[in-house]
Amino acid sequence: MISIGIVGATGYTGGELLRLLLRHPRVEIATVTSRGHAGAALTDWFPNLRGETDLCFSEPELEDLVKCDLVFFATPNGTAMHMVPQLLDAGTRVIDLGADFRLKDVHLWSQWYGLEHTCPELVEEAVYGLPEVNRQVIRAARLVANPGCYPTAVQLGFLPLVELGLVDLDHLVADAKSGVSGAGRQPKQNTMLTEVAESFRAYGASGHRHLPEIQQGLARAAGRPVELMFVPHLVPIIRGIHATLYARLLDSEVDVQALYEQRFRNEAFVDVMPPGSHPETRTVRGINVCRIAVHRPDSGRVVVLVVEDNLVKGAAGQAVQNMNLMFGLNERVGLTDIAVIP
Amino acid sequence: MISIGIVGATGYTGGELLRLLLRHPRVEIATVTSRGHAGAALTDWFPNLRGETDLCFSEPELEDLVKCDLVFFATPNGTAMHMVPQLLDAGTRVIDLGADFRLKDVHLWSQWYGLEHTCPELVEEAVYGLPEVNRQVIRAARLVANPGCYPTAVQLGFLPLVELGLVDLDHLVADAKSGVSGAGRQPKQNTMLTEVAESFRAYGASGHRHLPEIQQGLARAAGRPVELMFVPHLVPIIRGIHATLYARLLDSEVDVQALYEQRFRNEAFVDVMPPGSHPETRTVRGINVCRIAVHRPDSGRVVVLVVEDNLVKGAAGQAVQNMNLMFGLNERVGLTDIAVIP
Amino acid sequence: MISIGIVGATGYTGGELLRLLLRHPRVEIATVTSRGHAGAALTDWFPNLRGETDLCFSEPELEDLVKCDLVFFATPNGTAMHMVPQLLDAGTRVIDLGADFRLKDVHLWSQWYGLEHTCPELVEEAVYGLPEVNRQVIRAARLVANPGCYPTAVQLGFLPLVELGLVDLDHLVADAKSGVSGAGRQPKQNTMLTEVAESFRAYGASGHRHLPEIQQGLARAAGRPVELMFVPHLVPIIRGIHATLYARLLDSEVDVQALYEQRFRNEAFVDVMPPGSHPETRTVRGINVCRIAVHRPDSGRVVVLVVEDNLVKGAAGQAVQNMNLMFGLNERVGLTDIAVIP
Amino acid sequence: MISIGIVGATGYTGGELLRLLLRHPRVEIATVTSRGHAGAALTDWFPNLRGETDLCFSEPELEDLVKCDLVFFATPNGTAMHMVPQLLDAGTRVIDLGADFRLKDVHLWSQWYGLEHTCPELVEEAVYGLPEVNRQVIRAARLVANPGCYPTAVQLGFLPLVELGLVDLDHLVADAKSGVSGAGRQPKQNTMLTEVAESFRAYGASGHRHLPEIQQGLARAAGRPVELMFVPHLVPIIRGIHATLYARLLDSEVDVQALYEQRFRNEAFVDVMPPGSHPETRTVRGINVCRIAVHRPDSGRVVVLVVEDNLVKGAAGQAVQNMNLMFGLNERVGLTDIAVIP
Repeated sequence: MISIGIVGATGYTGGELLRLLLRHPRVEIATVTSRGHAGAALTDWFPNLRGETDLCFSEPELEDLVKCDLVFFATPNGTAMHMVPQLLDAGTRVIDLGADFRLKDVHLWSQWYGLEHTCPELVEEAVYGLPEVNRQVIRAARLVANPGCYPTAVQLGFLPLVELGLVDLDHLVADAKSGVSGAGRQPKQNTMLTEVAESFRAYGASGHRHLPEIQQGLARAAGRPVELMFVPHLVPIIRGIHATLYARLLDSEVDVQALYEQRFRNEAFVDVMPPGSHPETRTVRGINVCRIAVHRPDSGRVVVLVVEDNLVKGAAGQAVQNMNLMFGLNERVGLTDIAVIP
Repeated sequence: MISIGIVGATGYTGGELLRLLLRHPRVEIATVTSRGHAGAALTDWFPNLRGETDLCFSEPELEDLVKCDLVFFATPNGTAMHMVPQLLDAGTRVIDLGADFRLKDVHLWSQWYGLEHTCPELVEEAVYGLPEVNRQVIRAARLVANPGCYPTAVQLGFLPLVELGLVDLDHLVADAKSGVSGAGRQPKQNTMLTEVAESFRAYGASGHRHLPEIQQGLARAAGRPVELMFVPHLVPIIRGIHATLYARLLDSEVDVQALYEQRFRNEAFVDVMPPGSHPETRTVRGINVCRIAVHRPDSGRVVVLVVEDNLVKGAAGQAVQNMNLMFGLNERVGLTDIAVIP
Repeated sequence: MISIGIVGATGYTGGELLRLLLRHPRVEIATVTSRGHAGAALTDWFPNLRGETDLCFSEPELEDLVKCDLVFFATPNGTAMHMVPQLLDAGTRVIDLGADFRLKDVHLWSQWYGLEHTCPELVEEAVYGLPEVNRQVIRAARLVANPGCYPTAVQLGFLPLVELGLVDLDHLVADAKSGVSGAGRQPKQNTMLTEVAESFRAYGASGHRHLPEIQQGLARAAGRPVELMFVPHLVPIIRGIHATLYARLLDSEVDVQALYEQRFRNEAFVDVMPPGSHPETRTVRGINVCRIAVHRPDSGRVVVLVVEDNLVKGAAGQAVQNMNLMFGLNERVGLTDIAVIP
Repeated sequence: MISIGIVGATGYTGGELLRLLLRHPRVEIATVTSRGHAGAALTDWFPNLRGETDLCFSEPELEDLVKCDLVFFATPNGTAMHMVPQLLDAGTRVIDLGADFRLKDVHLWSQWYGLEHTCPELVEEAVYGLPEVNRQVIRAARLVANPGCYPTAVQLGFLPLVELGLVDLDHLVADAKSGVSGAGRQPKQNTMLTEVAESFRAYGASGHRHLPEIQQGLARAAGRPVELMFVPHLVPIIRGIHATLYARLLDSEVDVQALYEQRFRNEAFVDVMPPGSHPETRTVRGINVCRIAVHRPDSGRVVVLVVEDNLVKGAAGQAVQNMNLMFGLNERVGLTDIAVIP
């Protein structure tokens, strides 16, 4: 059994890790920490876990965490970087669900996150945990930077086109929509049901932290910088991300449908839908699947529709997928639920 | 008092016309028709009207309708064109909330709507009822084609840029989101709460009827054809449209905020919000206002956010605004409600 | 014009007062206070008021408030009692939307609200502002205790039966459901969309502050104490209260439908629906109406269904209704909106 | 492997059976029928099953169904009774998720369901499939009448009190609330998102088909008839039932909490929560658990709060639980999911 620690587990990604790992046949949850709520039962925070676990949150003590084979950080940005070096030194592997190790350009990271990085040397080593791109290096990684929710959807949706240079890389548009759980579990006025239900709005239209992460990934795939307009929106639902991607095709002859099917043929968690499809976020609620449909409104343009569960393929599920890779397990272990519809 | 007929009033736009006109100080509702539900009380279909009216639906008889000064058609596409000629001949003016008279190219109309047009000669005469563009001709019109919901939002959002040729007209993107009432009141599986709540999806990504209407309006404003990618989405809310518009600026020096404020300075129903704003659909729920915010994610690009109530500024409210113009009233009469928040 | 002050207007009842009073033809809003947000524009807190007002919040200064003819308190419980004595002394009348003056038994009040009352002598004078019961005394009142949201619905629903002693007063049941706005505008985990959407639950099943208020009103109507089981529930909607009332009829011959129609015949804001009806909360959203339907599942039992908007007839709308009475206006002035459906 | 047939699987309970049985380790789905949609892929109706099955719907042919060990009927009321006799004769066991075999009084059944029963002799034999009451007889049953959704919640909530005669059986009240999926998958105006979202209402307040079923079960437990007021309500959520039960205690000394814990100690799917709890429907979404909390607002009264997923413990999950019993499997097999929160 793989011994697991989860740091900062009172939030939504922490809760999803717990839900998934409590049913994972090859792991044992050793330590679940919360600086603010040590002593509380997990079930106080996650009533769906009643009857599933007797664990309580503990203080995040290094001496407990280094006993684990793997520690997940489900903490606010800027937290993991303070503990990761000691964990790696002790031989404990780490998956950070936050943003501390996602951007290779530490200066750029500081600009967007407003913090000084405390272990820039590890940023270089960290592996960006998008299995559909980095599967081999994830297997051997000590430290995995789990991708952001929007970046997972937008990159998976653009990758087949960008990798082969089939679209105009200077004029990409990603219009993204997320359920409210993407804003975390800290009560704020703008996540109250009374303020966001029966309404729809954009946010961060002048700039969002996930933009440089997406650009980094697409640039790496393209072998050159890309220009992207990215606007996120808040949908009054609990979970789900929908990304609508727009690009100009450089070659109007390309069979985009076949391209996508080919690119993701062997991917367990990417479902390329039949032509004409419009994926619904509900079909991936609670599961680690990303569904993609491609449309050709006219010969020179392509529209890609991508859905994922922001807390699963966009966070905790992808983290478990990375864990499976890191520990030599079948990538699908523990990730075989069927979405609950309706 | 202006004597009013409403044809096909059991749907959502019909209901909104009733709600607005019952409080309008200068009109009298003479005839409200429904082919399928003649004899039923209006309050059977619109429980919010209890205590406000004793009217019942009647059969749509020409002899009743020609007695009206103005007839609104809130009917499925392809219905109004069968009655409009006789009404105009009798001196009754018409506002069609459907699509029968929106597209000047009758051939294009037939392609998208799958019908032969029965009075193409009136298509030429019909005035496209977007007051912010056609105010003067609306005043004198016998027949007004009330714009579609998406076209209202997308055109108002792009107009200031397109009229002055400030953006690359070959690469416009309009990502639009609508509440479920946009799909009408006929029960269908894809409008059941169980099928669309807690989910989000696109539809018509390969082509939607509102695309040619938008292109016609923008081309007219630009003085040349425009190329537009347009994808509508279904938001699990009752009302509201949010359009997110993307364009490349040809001149990065232009003060876009000032441009919009200037363009809509005298418009009673267009609210240009302060820089950095993200308009929420809830702020226009039930009212005839369109709110717009402009963003400049970088020097060469502009993002425009537009919200409206699809049933009000996107349908019945705009129809009343057109009626006010046609009958020499102040444009705001009967359209001064404040949105209910939260 | 009646000069108005509103204390504590950043919450939802304050916002509703503003929405209603800005369109009220006989009032002038002189002062709108917020201890925490003085200086902020009202539109920062209520985006629906954009274009309607330039007012800003000010500090709640007595010298400003005493210049008003009427001050509304839309403050947390225990706030109004500290300012009301001075206001009344200065000749300013007061409507308290909080609970400070609702319970005549000051000791009981202290038990439920956990505070010592600072002006118990005014509790006696305060008039309970349920116009359907106290219309005459409200007209002359200096101080009106505006009823709670649940108490308004439950009392109106039970009154016709209780006043005439037609039901077993020892076994009343009121099962009540409220939208989330009833919990106020302070962000808390249990009002986040992510925590309450797509779910339903009871709260306060072992006791709720509105129970003694309801019992006081019903006892007064009955001329003897009543026994009531009352459980409130949280519905994942923004607005609306639905109360389902159960009682045993002492006389199975009574025509309950006729009784209700008779009792509320002259009430502008109580709509007794036809037999067999099931009122929907959406039909009263944003308006000051309470709709009631009565059912007789068998000869010995009666079920009463009551809906209201918790923020309007259950709070701000009823306060305006009381104001109209206090200042000799027609009770309906400023309260004639039609609910927006769908 | 148990060979399974599902008749009428295009609805919501059919879809849930498929979701659960596709992951059940001991069954094989042999035949899935739909009279109206034979030939269609299951994934056309249940997009969550993409990648999980290649099955198509077939016509409901007796020759196919008799090859199954067990046939589930997920059909409209009045359908199963036409096929069940032949299936039983052929040695195929049956679980009917409809109401055809729930009421022992065939005359009463005809009154409520408006049909003549075609095999009254089997009504006698049929076992009411509430395992917490009938576990032993279910094991041996040929024909199981799977309980209704409301009856499951209300009976489980009242049973401990009623079985021991601890409450006044003449004055029980069950106020029940259900998500919209309880109304089925046939599109109707009153299940459109636009008609039911952001609203709340009762239905069937003068009488509902589940009332006689509940009364039958409680009477059997009490050994005498019971009098119950039952009003169902529609909550604008997809799934979930919440029943709020009110009763007068005959003995105020009884420890109700201990009673419930004792009664359900060995029940895998009934969770008696700690004192003071308010169960949320979201905690049972998609899973076969019923959570119960008991409250004592005063010494003489008890309030019981019950939640279940109407499509799982209230339908398909309970059917699988019954199947496990009928085929000698551990009752929990295939029913161990954790609810997805948030």
